[in-house]
Amino acid sequence: MTKKKNGIGIDLGGTALKIGIVDHDGKILKKISVDSNADKGPDAVIRQIINGTRQILESAKVKNYGIGIGAPGAVSLEKGVVENPPNFPGWGRVPLGEILKKEFKCDVFVENDANAAAIGEMIYGAGKNHENFIMITLGTGVGGGIIINRKIYRGETGGAGELGHVTIDSMGRQCKCGSIGCIEAYIGNNYLIERVKTQIVDRQDSQLYGMIKDDFNLLTPKLIHSAAENGDDFSQSVVIDTGTKLGYALTSIVNVLDITAIIIGGGVAGFGKLLFDSVESTLKDRVMKPFRSRIKVKPAKLKNDAGIKGASALVFYKS
Amino acid sequence: MTKKKNGIGIDLGGTALKIGIVDHDGKILKKISVDSNADKGPDAVIRQIINGTRQILESAKVKNYGIGIGAPGAVSLEKGVVENPPNFPGWGRVPLGEILKKEFKCDVFVENDANAAAIGEMIYGAGKNHENFIMITLGTGVGGGIIINRKIYRGETGGAGELGHVTIDSMGRQCKCGSIGCIEAYIGNNYLIERVKTQIVDRQDSQLYGMIKDDFNLLTPKLIHSAAENGDDFSQSVVIDTGTKLGYALTSIVNVLDITAIIIGGGVAGFGKLLFDSVESTLKDRVMKPFRSRIKVKPAKLKNDAGIKGASALVFYKS
Repeated sequence: MTKKKNGIGIDLGGTALKIGIVDHDGKILKKISVDSNADKGPDAVIRQIINGTRQILESAKVKNYGIGIGAPGAVSLEKGVVENPPNFPGWGRVPLGEILKKEFKCDVFVENDANAAAIGEMIYGAGKNHENFIMITLGTGVGGGIIINRKIYRGETGGAGELGHVTIDSMGRQCKCGSIGCIEAYIGNNYLIERVKTQIVDRQDSQLYGMIKDDFNLLTPKLIHSAAENGDDFSQSVVIDTGTKLGYALTSIVNVLDITAIIIGGGVAGFGKLLFDSVESTLKDRVMKPFRSRIKVKPAKLKNDAGIKGASALVFYKS
Repeated sequence: MTKKKNGIGIDLGGTALKIGIVDHDGKILKKISVDSNADKGPDAVIRQIINGTRQILESAKVKNYGIGIGAPGAVSLEKGVVENPPNFPGWGRVPLGEILKKEFKCDVFVENDANAAAIGEMIYGAGKNHENFIMITLGTGVGGGIIINRKIYRGETGGAGELGHVTIDSMGRQCKCGSIGCIEAYIGNNYLIERVKTQIVDRQDSQLYGMIKDDFNLLTPKLIHSAAENGDDFSQSVVIDTGTKLGYALTSIVNVLDITAIIIGGGVAGFGKLLFDSVESTLKDRVMKPFRSRIKVKPAKLKNDAGIKGASALVFYKS
């Protein structure tokens, strides 16, 4: 009997480098987290990756494995080149895939982290039974992945699925991408917190204000969520507004793609049912009539270790 | 030597039914236009199609041919079913493809008219040398077709490519689709003319106002175009505003699809260079940075007979 293959999932973040061994069903057998050393340049990062991977392989004694890497920014698949990832100074173009292949003599797959998250949901998570779905990840940035016929849709240069940069108000808020009114400029973590800060000064009666008093640094999506759960109407309005705006952006996406299953992950997705309900009801009010009855909005299933699991899923994904 | 195949292109419109014989290079050999009899129900429409097709086939004496039909609304490809096309009362689901196949004993292809327009540009027109492009048609409605790897992208139910219903201002103008702020609600012919009517009362100094005086019924995209060409700054501002708004919508579409060649057809595309330049410069300002240098905005090549040619192209298209 051959031992089933495992996926080594490497989640390359600007601060933390997370590495895990994941089995075919998406169960994490072992994981570590180390500093990614991004500020020390690519060689230092590569050393961290190699040492971390070697360490976890030795301690777990797995033999049959492939490696999957989820990296921020642009990735070219053939040689697994990671190109100028944001928050990795002095990086340039690094053939991370080739380097690890030589080092570990196994299959290595490198993907943009938003695409890896979508593949993770497809292989292990909420997208298991969907031929097509739209995955949106709410974090500092708002990222996306589009699955068509159980394949990632990449577009001409692998840059497709920039769902955070769909416009909801072309004369609205400046986005850091250079455009105006992108959905990210409303519901990306920092933008969202900034907006709440300006609104809450007029809502000192709210529970949320009571929780932070004047220390605006305490404001997080998590805190907003718990205040909303406790019945704070100001926090609830923030959650509903977030879901409604996300629904506006998804309306355009559904009308273009005719894909009606939507999976939402990332921190702000922790807003829970109130968020999902407002996304869904906005979509059902707004998308083209024939699509309305088919709309399904679901939370992502891979939560805390979504990065590791998504990366490991690359090993089990037939591209 | 076998005689090359011709395409019989049938452009099914709410008022006119246009039928043409088109050769492999997109040249129309013969064409007719008759009333579509839409108000008399499906049987009357089908009779018009059969009689018109028979008539043109007999007069042109072509032997080797296939039939392509471009129809408004939803089309299911397998049996060539046309479903409740707008402006065709009492229609329901009609297997137009099957009916014509029995009648003419040849290959029959039925497509949504916006998709047929995109296929027409791909086979004969501005999309000839593009693997991927976005086709947008500006008329009463704003329609779209997405070509990926030289195939129409249909989505789950053939409804993809509703580019006219991409939002540019989620709190903006009501669109007849039920949503708010769709690009069609700004630059669809009727919406555009309505907006110009309300603006022009304050611009009685403009050349355009001089051309229409108080007869607002004279306002057409064509008239606006010629006033703009004559240097009327009000009309130029209308054209630039139209192009800019279209650029906003296309920004979202390019960011989602990573497709950067854009072909624009339909009446308002007659606005010419000023329109295309403002679409292109808006896109280059707004799409994600890696896409900017690749943006190409072109006018459609199939003009007046785009409907017939697009439908005929279905015969030469390998789906």
